[in-house]
Amino acid sequence: MRVSVVGARGYVGGELVRLVLGHPELELVQATSRSCAGRPLGAVHPNLHHHSGVRFTAPEQLEPADAVLAAVPAGELAGVHQRLTSAARVVVDLSPDSRDPRTAPEPGYTLGMPELNRAALSGATRISVPGCMATAAVLALRPLVSAGLVDGEALVDARTGSSGAGTAPTTATHHPERQNALRVYRAAGHRHADEIARICGVRTRMTVTAVPLVRGVQAVVHARPPRPVSRAEVWDAYRACYAEEPFIRLVARRAGPHRLPDPQFLTGSNFADLGFDVDEDGARIVSVAALDNLMKGAAGGAVQSLNAASGIAERAGLEFPGLHAG
Amino acid sequence: MRVSVVGARGYVGGELVRLVLGHPELELVQATSRSCAGRPLGAVHPNLHHHSGVRFTAPEQLEPADAVLAAVPAGELAGVHQRLTSAARVVVDLSPDSRDPRTAPEPGYTLGMPELNRAALSGATRISVPGCMATAAVLALRPLVSAGLVDGEALVDARTGSSGAGTAPTTATHHPERQNALRVYRAAGHRHADEIARICGVRTRMTVTAVPLVRGVQAVVHARPPRPVSRAEVWDAYRACYAEEPFIRLVARRAGPHRLPDPQFLTGSNFADLGFDVDEDGARIVSVAALDNLMKGAAGGAVQSLNAASGIAERAGLEFPGLHAG
Amino acid sequence: MRVSVVGARGYVGGELVRLVLGHPELELVQATSRSCAGRPLGAVHPNLHHHSGVRFTAPEQLEPADAVLAAVPAGELAGVHQRLTSAARVVVDLSPDSRDPRTAPEPGYTLGMPELNRAALSGATRISVPGCMATAAVLALRPLVSAGLVDGEALVDARTGSSGAGTAPTTATHHPERQNALRVYRAAGHRHADEIARICGVRTRMTVTAVPLVRGVQAVVHARPPRPVSRAEVWDAYRACYAEEPFIRLVARRAGPHRLPDPQFLTGSNFADLGFDVDEDGARIVSVAALDNLMKGAAGGAVQSLNAASGIAERAGLEFPGLHAG
Amino acid sequence: MRVSVVGARGYVGGELVRLVLGHPELELVQATSRSCAGRPLGAVHPNLHHHSGVRFTAPEQLEPADAVLAAVPAGELAGVHQRLTSAARVVVDLSPDSRDPRTAPEPGYTLGMPELNRAALSGATRISVPGCMATAAVLALRPLVSAGLVDGEALVDARTGSSGAGTAPTTATHHPERQNALRVYRAAGHRHADEIARICGVRTRMTVTAVPLVRGVQAVVHARPPRPVSRAEVWDAYRACYAEEPFIRLVARRAGPHRLPDPQFLTGSNFADLGFDVDEDGARIVSVAALDNLMKGAAGGAVQSLNAASGIAERAGLEFPGLHAG
Repeated sequence: MRVSVVGARGYVGGELVRLVLGHPELELVQATSRSCAGRPLGAVHPNLHHHSGVRFTAPEQLEPADAVLAAVPAGELAGVHQRLTSAARVVVDLSPDSRDPRTAPEPGYTLGMPELNRAALSGATRISVPGCMATAAVLALRPLVSAGLVDGEALVDARTGSSGAGTAPTTATHHPERQNALRVYRAAGHRHADEIARICGVRTRMTVTAVPLVRGVQAVVHARPPRPVSRAEVWDAYRACYAEEPFIRLVARRAGPHRLPDPQFLTGSNFADLGFDVDEDGARIVSVAALDNLMKGAAGGAVQSLNAASGIAERAGLEFPGLHAG
Repeated sequence: MRVSVVGARGYVGGELVRLVLGHPELELVQATSRSCAGRPLGAVHPNLHHHSGVRFTAPEQLEPADAVLAAVPAGELAGVHQRLTSAARVVVDLSPDSRDPRTAPEPGYTLGMPELNRAALSGATRISVPGCMATAAVLALRPLVSAGLVDGEALVDARTGSSGAGTAPTTATHHPERQNALRVYRAAGHRHADEIARICGVRTRMTVTAVPLVRGVQAVVHARPPRPVSRAEVWDAYRACYAEEPFIRLVARRAGPHRLPDPQFLTGSNFADLGFDVDEDGARIVSVAALDNLMKGAAGGAVQSLNAASGIAERAGLEFPGLHAG
Repeated sequence: MRVSVVGARGYVGGELVRLVLGHPELELVQATSRSCAGRPLGAVHPNLHHHSGVRFTAPEQLEPADAVLAAVPAGELAGVHQRLTSAARVVVDLSPDSRDPRTAPEPGYTLGMPELNRAALSGATRISVPGCMATAAVLALRPLVSAGLVDGEALVDARTGSSGAGTAPTTATHHPERQNALRVYRAAGHRHADEIARICGVRTRMTVTAVPLVRGVQAVVHARPPRPVSRAEVWDAYRACYAEEPFIRLVARRAGPHRLPDPQFLTGSNFADLGFDVDEDGARIVSVAALDNLMKGAAGGAVQSLNAASGIAERAGLEFPGLHAG
Repeated sequence: MRVSVVGARGYVGGELVRLVLGHPELELVQATSRSCAGRPLGAVHPNLHHHSGVRFTAPEQLEPADAVLAAVPAGELAGVHQRLTSAARVVVDLSPDSRDPRTAPEPGYTLGMPELNRAALSGATRISVPGCMATAAVLALRPLVSAGLVDGEALVDARTGSSGAGTAPTTATHHPERQNALRVYRAAGHRHADEIARICGVRTRMTVTAVPLVRGVQAVVHARPPRPVSRAEVWDAYRACYAEEPFIRLVARRAGPHRLPDPQFLTGSNFADLGFDVDEDGARIVSVAALDNLMKGAAGGAVQSLNAASGIAERAGLEFPGLHAG
């Protein structure tokens, strides 16, 4: 399958290029970037320095391919949509534009989250990958919602590394300001809360904190069940949703320092780790999801969705498991 | 006032020694440590290397002083209490033992939190400093409780740096395991929740996460008011509690990257920064407290309490404001 | 090819297991650990949690295999050597023991560094992988030595992350002591200097600094050429050594923030990046090597050597290129 | 003494304001900033939030004072020099402009380094503070040069945190690029080498690496003595220079993790720590200096120089010793 990456200069774009280049069933046609056209790939993404023959091409020179993976900035999808759909039969969009009915350039976008709608993805030609925080929160919430364990609304506490802010340097991401930050940059209200509510069918309140990491998102979801629950019931809810999922791991160890999902083990990986605990009185479930925001939360989710849509083995090209002491 | 520090080898003990040595009204008599007796101060606390004349003394050789600041490990207060009270008229204890009625060696300990009980502290000779997470959570919760803005229970989400775990190396604090950790090490239930409830008079649920910092605690408290509230009402509640406090700063900027309290600016400082936000519908208050766990959350709070108890200006010896780009 | 990993609990051992599990031509027989026998792999190495069927076995129960990859602590090879050679025809040792003629359990160990002795490795059954700092320094020095560009001795300034210290928690690796450390822990003299001199045939002086990273080694080698040199000459020396090497990348960009090799892009990867600069008067060459100490500097180098020894494609199982913003 | 800070928005400027506000003998007149005029101090420097009455003033509105501490960007001193000298009798400049005879706006600037020229500073009205890397390297080199222990040239290996790059966000200081960087950004040649040579009278070669810290500079100087030396001789050389210095600490412990100077203990402090080691054959001295680039390497050095020039106790306002586990 011949694939181009549009918006290949950003961190998500760089991951898309890395995944396509390492994928046994995909072949890279082009990596486009307005600002870097003509430059070698490794000048922007030093980890890909050895692909010395690959250079960025201008977005206007997009050539025909089987699929396009598009990582354009928010608000720019509409302007390039015609070009993408002309170039390729399958468009996988990673911008927020296609996720929201109000900004989607056409109505037919399918949610790119195989755990929720694998059947609908099969054969899909317009795929919209959800945001990294929404992905984490939805994965954590969904088993609880499905099992009827959320009474009223849920509280989503999201923590995020700096790479989610993109490549444009700002004071907020200037190293001396960001290195040791615990920045509650969205205490109340959040556009992602709407996205989560839309996907999960449960109202959420959300707080987001920037933490001293480059990669990684962790969603800690606090939910109040309609009646006291046991740990076993919650395990059952998780297993009912995810027992067969290729990229979901259930993590709730009884001992050791690494009992609940921690994004440190997921850098570069497409796994999402999920776990939980329950207050002694059974009146609160704390559900924890961890993932790599640029992988399972973006580029990895896109390739997994493309695999699912195209009849390719879902794990193909996404085997890197992450590191210990990474 | 002549002061000794008992348990001076730990991180809290080292901060106590630093504060006493730099305090205009206090004079260091002894710094005791069982394991380091005889060694120069700077061999253990390199920041104090220039105090070349100070050496650790054995705990058994505790000499008379006006006050003792005790940072002994949990469970060890009872065993040394007689020695402390024999050596000094005033004992300020930083262990968890004196905080809990079940483990306190005598009933007369006064809570060392001037913001809550300054009057009671005046002249006190037995002072118990609350834990760092409890301090942060109580400071964030109290204005809401006082103003009747907490309906039912509150949710305390605490984040902590590694120095709170003490000086004993373990796998959990081994650098390759801890450097990039977002470790939800207490998702549900927590002994600190009881301490907070006891002090604040409101039931709390608590989740604690270890974050990639050495110093710093941040408490994010989610509370549901009995009726929708405005930001102005919450401001009033905060000001009613803290307008005159020497070490409380109200931080809720409208713009810029640093809008809510962030412990990165408080390293080495005795300030606690407090701020908040309110959901658009007024149905949730998110109250945020940040402090240095070894300072306002331990050694600084102890010296502030000793100042308050002894008629010394409360700010004395605690003027360091923290750093920008620190 | 059926392979066991001995000493699988450590960071190097964990990487060996990860590489074998993901290798198209290798099959894992056993992962042994004295202290973790019986425990699931993921309890120790959370990144491998999904291999739920793999458990550590006791070293005494080592079964026959085609090859053993051994990551035992320094000084312990002699005690287990008989067991390893009985179990497998090929032994790849990663301890310092087999590198040093004084401690090697038998004389026939071949240096596991394909860049230097690929021919000798073909068919080898005893392979000794050099240390991570030696690997970096040797890769940086060797082109200069080969081209006659080192007059007298070279100065090796090595910088290392914390994972090189192993999994045993100590005060030196306790997070509050290590997180912000620039620790010149070996200013003068160093056992690695001998190893480098032995391999490169040039006397070296060495200084080692622990830096605030988990993974990564960077060797900055300062050499004085016998006569002033140009950049072009040094390029030629590098290309003469490494033009065809599958895991060496030459990195010396003219612009941008990432001009010389930086280990941040090599985490999890088997690449070693090499680059250099020359003082304006041509009188000093500064040669820089970066690599992942657990990969190219240990586990990756071992698998690459095993590939080379066994007629497997040298890149097999080692394709992960590292990350940008990782 | 009434003092204004010009260029108060930057990190050095913020430190100058902090030091003046906490200094027993200095009073802040104004803190100027072109871009932040009118804004409260705490909006830019959150650590100074409690000084709620202080606002930035426009540089054009500089009022008369006794002294001006100027932290203007490189190349801008000449344009404001007239304004500074009109406003105050004493000008302490922290820009590179006054250090270099080619760019100094007038010839009479005295080097602001009390360790080298305390006598000349007494009564000086034009003081030029050297750069942070030069300060560290000069402090490390000078005892060796004075004692005749440097044969030929010295090699200065400087490591620096991100705060030295200033407040302007760039790709090089963007958190995802900088957090895990070991960036040899100046391998060969460096303008600071000239400054060091000018001050020390010995030719130096220099390599500079950006390391994963916000604050801190460490200079590791490698020098070849004309004949083999013992550790005792080097100690004597150090003591001869620094025995009485209020802000120099000699650190060369025999055991423990913190044997040589490490900037982690100096954050916020005006101390410079110095130590060394000698190769076994006595043929190389490795001299190590550590300091806080914004303090002893800039703002602290400026205040120390102003103290020395004005007959104020040199330690005044500079007592903060740094932290352990900071």
